[in-house]
Amino acid sequence: MPTPHHNLTIGVFDSGFGGLTVLHDLLPLISYANYIYLGDTARLPYGSKSRATIVRYALSSARFLLAQGADLLVIACNTATALALEEIRADLPIPVIGVIQPGAQAAANTTNPPKNRVPHLRDSLTVAKVGEPPQISTEPPHVIVLATTATIQSHAYAQALKALGLEATEKACPLLVPLVEEGWTNHPVTAEVLRIYLSEALATTPHATTLLLGCTHYPLIRPLIQSTLETLGHPLQIIDSAYATAQATAALITTQLPNLPQSPHPTQTFYATDSVEKFQRLGSSFLGQPLNQVHLIDLGG
Amino acid sequence: MPTPHHNLTIGVFDSGFGGLTVLHDLLPLISYANYIYLGDTARLPYGSKSRATIVRYALSSARFLLAQGADLLVIACNTATALALEEIRADLPIPVIGVIQPGAQAAANTTNPPKNRVPHLRDSLTVAKVGEPPQISTEPPHVIVLATTATIQSHAYAQALKALGLEATEKACPLLVPLVEEGWTNHPVTAEVLRIYLSEALATTPHATTLLLGCTHYPLIRPLIQSTLETLGHPLQIIDSAYATAQATAALITTQLPNLPQSPHPTQTFYATDSVEKFQRLGSSFLGQPLNQVHLIDLGG
Repeated sequence: MPTPHHNLTIGVFDSGFGGLTVLHDLLPLISYANYIYLGDTARLPYGSKSRATIVRYALSSARFLLAQGADLLVIACNTATALALEEIRADLPIPVIGVIQPGAQAAANTTNPPKNRVPHLRDSLTVAKVGEPPQISTEPPHVIVLATTATIQSHAYAQALKALGLEATEKACPLLVPLVEEGWTNHPVTAEVLRIYLSEALATTPHATTLLLGCTHYPLIRPLIQSTLETLGHPLQIIDSAYATAQATAALITTQLPNLPQSPHPTQTFYATDSVEKFQRLGSSFLGQPLNQVHLIDLGG
Repeated sequence: MPTPHHNLTIGVFDSGFGGLTVLHDLLPLISYANYIYLGDTARLPYGSKSRATIVRYALSSARFLLAQGADLLVIACNTATALALEEIRADLPIPVIGVIQPGAQAAANTTNPPKNRVPHLRDSLTVAKVGEPPQISTEPPHVIVLATTATIQSHAYAQALKALGLEATEKACPLLVPLVEEGWTNHPVTAEVLRIYLSEALATTPHATTLLLGCTHYPLIRPLIQSTLETLGHPLQIIDSAYATAQATAALITTQLPNLPQSPHPTQTFYATDSVEKFQRLGSSFLGQPLNQVHLIDLGG
């Protein structure tokens, strides 16, 4: 049953806890909104499942937040954005924003502009015609994207980055979510897994300049990713989409929902489809503050 | 819609692929039956979720196999057995067998009988009364159980082992399923994770004699578990429940379904709730033979 409300209400959903890193960046930037967060923990992970299953799960999560009174939906999950953004936009009558376009834009913003890069011969076999200068051009900046298997297989990041003039190497990292959920965020095993994944990506892309964290769990191991890159001698610029998504959400409110009143007493309501106790315990480390009240909700399944 | 049948049909289910290790042992032992296997891959893993969610998922999986014509149900999943065996038995009108009781029995069968063990003073502070012999007794054999978080938290193995006169140390190993599903079954990272989990369990139980693999994924890393134990200087007897469950199923057919005709042309039918392509690919390594036809089924969620 929809909750009656008169003030701006933002719905945020993820398959679990990772989306709380996006909510963490939304709260100070759009402090005047009510928030409804849904973690679809009974059906997580999304990242190892098929497109059809992810679309089904993501649609039911999105419809739940709409029914709860969301005026705007933030898909705070890379996998759901990659596989189901278009389906959710077609289904819901409210503005919907995902994390991939803002993440790709953030990578583009921090990549060195072309004038600062060293030009390469695009094709060393090209022979310049007499009287013409040699065919020199710059290679586009190269980004390594780390994400779940489903996100990588969708190529959503490669497409978003290509539209912004960036090349991408996509690397599926299926063990990182379990390691973060085990709490091994600063553990030698996680460092070794990162060394393996990053070495494999860098072997094919030694000229990469930027590393895009394409899963909302990964900001929790950002320090370990940074130290691993330094150990490997590749100190890439690290980007995550949380802050960029929060900024894009603020811009979207200005353009599409300018007349909705701000909440004088902003509220945060949390829903989970599995254990609320576990959600409170794990969620607080993602949000960076304690979670008090979490409601259990059954979306079927 | 139920499939009509006249010959013995065994339903087997797991949250995913692990139960295929049980089917692997059922096939040669009960070769005259038709098999229907369900992998609830859209909702896996069960092992990190709550009792209420696991019971809901396991019941719908069990009911599906009943509707397909199963005469007997094998819950080939430790987590579903630990959390939902009683609920499924109460719900289904057919015999239901899980993997925990057979696994515990197998551990009891291979534990040294009391007469071969060195007696200990149960309580060194006990002072023998004058004229009486010192209070000497034997400690019960001790088993280390490795399993998912949900199975461990249920204490189903400790209770089953205690009823057989064995003490248990239960150790949750949440990273082992993701490592097996990543295919890292003989990988240094998996060896290091095993070293950590086994060292922690052995630190509290240096006198353990038996290691019980309480998850159907773990037989795939049995050689690595064995070599890790040897490196640690604790060559425990390793037990898994797959073969014991197959034996218990055969005994149950003899006692409870003696009159069902054997199938002259035994069939194997596979269902999965998520990608059938992934089920075929991963499942063949668990079953030890190629999986040809897998049907997609929607159990909701």
